[in-house]
Amino acid sequence: MKTFVLTASLMLMSMTVSSTEPIAIAIHGGAGTIERGKLTETQEREVRAALNDSIEAGHRILAAGGSSMDAVVAAVKILEDAPQFNAGRGAVLTHEGKVELDASIMDGASLAAGAVASVTGVRHPIEAARAVMMHSPHVMLVSEGANAFAESVGIEFKDPDWFITDFRARQLESVQANAQSSVQLSEDWFSTVGAVALDASGNLAAATSTGGMTNKRWGRVGDSPIIGAGTYADNASCAVSATGHGEFFIRHVVAYDICARFKYTGLSLRESADQVIHDVLVESGGDGGVIAVDGKGNIAMPFNTQGMYRASMNAAGQKIVAIYGDD
Amino acid sequence: MKTFVLTASLMLMSMTVSSTEPIAIAIHGGAGTIERGKLTETQEREVRAALNDSIEAGHRILAAGGSSMDAVVAAVKILEDAPQFNAGRGAVLTHEGKVELDASIMDGASLAAGAVASVTGVRHPIEAARAVMMHSPHVMLVSEGANAFAESVGIEFKDPDWFITDFRARQLESVQANAQSSVQLSEDWFSTVGAVALDASGNLAAATSTGGMTNKRWGRVGDSPIIGAGTYADNASCAVSATGHGEFFIRHVVAYDICARFKYTGLSLRESADQVIHDVLVESGGDGGVIAVDGKGNIAMPFNTQGMYRASMNAAGQKIVAIYGDD
Repeated sequence: MKTFVLTASLMLMSMTVSSTEPIAIAIHGGAGTIERGKLTETQEREVRAALNDSIEAGHRILAAGGSSMDAVVAAVKILEDAPQFNAGRGAVLTHEGKVELDASIMDGASLAAGAVASVTGVRHPIEAARAVMMHSPHVMLVSEGANAFAESVGIEFKDPDWFITDFRARQLESVQANAQSSVQLSEDWFSTVGAVALDASGNLAAATSTGGMTNKRWGRVGDSPIIGAGTYADNASCAVSATGHGEFFIRHVVAYDICARFKYTGLSLRESADQVIHDVLVESGGDGGVIAVDGKGNIAMPFNTQGMYRASMNAAGQKIVAIYGDD
Repeated sequence: MKTFVLTASLMLMSMTVSSTEPIAIAIHGGAGTIERGKLTETQEREVRAALNDSIEAGHRILAAGGSSMDAVVAAVKILEDAPQFNAGRGAVLTHEGKVELDASIMDGASLAAGAVASVTGVRHPIEAARAVMMHSPHVMLVSEGANAFAESVGIEFKDPDWFITDFRARQLESVQANAQSSVQLSEDWFSTVGAVALDASGNLAAATSTGGMTNKRWGRVGDSPIIGAGTYADNASCAVSATGHGEFFIRHVVAYDICARFKYTGLSLRESADQVIHDVLVESGGDGGVIAVDGKGNIAMPFNTQGMYRASMNAAGQKIVAIYGDD
């Protein structure tokens, strides 16, 4: 009888703990100049469905007591497979018509991090980034070397053609036909994907995955695989994943700067993220947005563009799936 | 007569301004476990001579009213050519016995930045990084793409063998013979090179160049070409170039974090740099050091290793050329 009471008490304690510790997750699928009516009804339905699948998959892991690391990877993998987003299958094409992918991931508990840049044929670059973090002494691997590492640890590869959609092929043709110079200077849509999460153990994680810029050349790497610029997570501050015009996000170390303002100035997560996105980046001309979560489960999703594909589920279980600024 | 007086007054004003505006420069050639007696007398003389040449070349440009950008490039180029340092000629060899070079540069006035990673055959990777900053819309280019870009803008190339010294060839043999695993986990000497400077116009600049880690594989990229980790410059805070175990410098966004602490917390440059090098990095096990300068010409050169090849000339014209901790 005594044993039974003790067990019941422990169960009750355990349930109490798990129900009071906040969990939270946010995802993005890119930001840019998007207005109501630009997407067809079918396109909009597909985008919202993919965002919903992704946020639900990540939240399900957190709700079952899983880690923020597993949650962000699960959420990002769904967006990498969805052809609507510029990551994994459906990513933009380089100047040479190829798909070159970048991704990074960071564990806020240990500050362990992994990144790959300019990999080809990797179905889930976010898995390759996690493998760099877990199975190598390094943080960042690039190009053929990163591909060789991914192969050596059993990462899934797909045929190069599997990644290329008709939409991206037409997009490259259009950009190359209209390009005044050989370099694509800017885009109106930066559809990198990413996720940030807080798990019931209080651990933060962030993950970002992208195909970069349409018509990119010369092995251009944007902010997505750069720890500090496109991705950052630290239990002592916050977790951030960015999407936007990568060069500006690198120069302003956007993901880490939000964490630094939060940590050093006493501003809230929202205020820290707003300052960087609406003040610093707007003044310098850098388009884009971020998703961010702190250790209390507060979520911020600011963007300085017309829209950002995004979704979140907060500590109270409230779900948002949104596209437009007034969504 | 009136004209003469006016001209004389203007000359005097101009001399007064240039003599009161501080200029300052600091360079490094790596940090690690170095004790008196480890270097031969000849080696020590060569290292000190190269450091002296580099700091003098950079300071001469600043003293003549040149830009901090030109000063850091001139200083780094001398260290890239000197075979004693792990950058340009004399860089460490990869697992495959090749020289793969990384570099980055940042202009504190505009926050313009450029970086190359895993380039081969480029005599002065810092010139390639500056070309990315000036002649491309991008910040970071990697591997073959970065090489192709460097060729397209007329950067100087050398035969692959030109870069390889007997010392580095023996070092790779030794590491590969002793390696328990196929991966080199740590080194006792991180001889990346770098420079930071303040010019008479109040502009800061930072530059870093390296060959990375001996026996590196899989296109490993360290902190040196990562804006925020190995290099950062912002007139509103400071300029930093780092040397050390790159993975730790990436995870802690070392260069930018020093600027962030300086900007957000009101600590001095020295206190900001000391916190990151002696507290954050020591706690996490990250060996290395930085050179840093702020807009008033204050210089900090902290390192948590036994020694760091370093030199500086401050606003008063005082020159330091040093190797050991008690130097």
